[in-house]
Amino acid sequence: MALLFASPDDDPIAWRAALTRRLPDLDVRIYPEIGDPAEIEAALVWLPPPGLLASLPNLRAIFSLGAGVDRLLEDPTLPAELPLCRMVDPSLTASMAEFVLLHVLRYHRDLDVYEAQQRRAEWRLVLPKPAAATVVGLMGLGELGAASAGLLARHGFTVRGWSRTRKAIEGVRCFAGPEELAAFLDGVGVLVCLLPLTPATRGILNAELFARLPRGARLVNLARGAHLVEQDLLDALDTGRLAHATLDVFVREPLPKEHPFWRHPKITVTPHAASYSLPESGAELVVENLRRLRDGRPLLHVVDRARGY
Amino acid sequence: MALLFASPDDDPIAWRAALTRRLPDLDVRIYPEIGDPAEIEAALVWLPPPGLLASLPNLRAIFSLGAGVDRLLEDPTLPAELPLCRMVDPSLTASMAEFVLLHVLRYHRDLDVYEAQQRRAEWRLVLPKPAAATVVGLMGLGELGAASAGLLARHGFTVRGWSRTRKAIEGVRCFAGPEELAAFLDGVGVLVCLLPLTPATRGILNAELFARLPRGARLVNLARGAHLVEQDLLDALDTGRLAHATLDVFVREPLPKEHPFWRHPKITVTPHAASYSLPESGAELVVENLRRLRDGRPLLHVVDRARGY
Repeated sequence: MALLFASPDDDPIAWRAALTRRLPDLDVRIYPEIGDPAEIEAALVWLPPPGLLASLPNLRAIFSLGAGVDRLLEDPTLPAELPLCRMVDPSLTASMAEFVLLHVLRYHRDLDVYEAQQRRAEWRLVLPKPAAATVVGLMGLGELGAASAGLLARHGFTVRGWSRTRKAIEGVRCFAGPEELAAFLDGVGVLVCLLPLTPATRGILNAELFARLPRGARLVNLARGAHLVEQDLLDALDTGRLAHATLDVFVREPLPKEHPFWRHPKITVTPHAASYSLPESGAELVVENLRRLRDGRPLLHVVDRARGY
Repeated sequence: MALLFASPDDDPIAWRAALTRRLPDLDVRIYPEIGDPAEIEAALVWLPPPGLLASLPNLRAIFSLGAGVDRLLEDPTLPAELPLCRMVDPSLTASMAEFVLLHVLRYHRDLDVYEAQQRRAEWRLVLPKPAAATVVGLMGLGELGAASAGLLARHGFTVRGWSRTRKAIEGVRCFAGPEELAAFLDGVGVLVCLLPLTPATRGILNAELFARLPRGARLVNLARGAHLVEQDLLDALDTGRLAHATLDVFVREPLPKEHPFWRHPKITVTPHAASYSLPESGAELVVENLRRLRDGRPLLHVVDRARGY
């Protein structure tokens, strides 16, 4: 079986090695050296060129290298009848939960305040609070959100979660649906977005939502750039409604040099660095799905395209 | 019994409330309103004015509000025969371990690199590594160091500890004494100092030590400013021997406005913010020691003055 590998951000050699160690007869074609397109039955991709997947006449399944498949679904030529599987991988999940913990700890311990003070050579202690005094709100309780919420709760934070359908996570107070969004936001000191990008969540981080947060709350967006209404964030930082934001994702990536986020004193920019599938662990799911494809069994983590994740 | 409370940094009203809730007949005298010095039998202090304790004729015990007692021991008038107890408090320990975890995570996830890139509007991903790939070295394995090492190990970091006498901590490779210092340092990517300040540890963070670390290591000093040879740090950052440092403690606090650390692009300055005793939990030990003092029983956490901690 031939598998197409196409990603501008992942290491094709490491992925090929991890895959063929498990499936020695797998023929991994690394884009753009794809050989005969008719031989390719599966594709493992992150941000593939639009139209590439539609050009493979015998493609039977598409595997995303990322947990979010919104960019794939934006390609109008994406073959509509093929199963599309999202990445679920312990290393990706651990990496995301760790990044969430890091940024929540940063805000809980006021490193944003100290950073601003350092620019003014100002020495002023903010008394540390116990972890339970910081209320963290997680939007999105899928694989990544649930793992992050659990890690935060185990550290001792007061954790709330919000998702489309109600979830149950130990130590996390769970809210569901648009009708419970206001109650979820009321009192949240650090808001973390890990939602899938869908028509219902696009632009959800906006002025109306920020107005529901306590004054001086902090925002961490690790999901997709399009969740955020950029001007609303700038306004909220200006008025002090939000004290600081950490953004790892942007509508245009790389974030253009001239974008105001780069130079904003109350915004931390990271280059889509929150989470990453390591070939060694991510290959497990891909190989399992390739075996299922070969045997005609149902694939794992197939995206519901109507739902968007 | 009358207790003197003297600290420029702690909230006297909250401490008095926490103490008298447990010992209603305790007479807490808040410096400088100390009343008759002859009535004071115990003192709870952080950076008291030199000579203050020596002026109390009937003082029987000194309790430190901080875990480190080096500043008290520097006062040549400190009554030599009185028991001096250091603070051991779950909130202080948790706060320190949390701050250590935060800074190790920051370096593990390359936030120092991203911060420098943000100043240049540069988008460049450093691939995340699993926690086990980051080797953390903890100098000092007392209450605070041991708790921090344990928390780091539970998160999945590869943790080493170094102390004067050998300790045993689950998941931590322990080194002891000057003869094992070089082996301890070899390969450490993030070095965290939590040592007590004693004649043997003063200036221990120096060029010779930095030269034993891998090129590009990061330093976190949360112990005392005098552990660090400041010019050696500046040189190590200039040559790239060290990539970045986080300093919470300084020889002079507050750090003077004109000090080069404030404006150094590879140094994060925090205002002695790592750890703090909350009155509600710290009062437990003080009250227990006051009861022991009254009953003539041995006090807890008495400092060995020859050793310095």
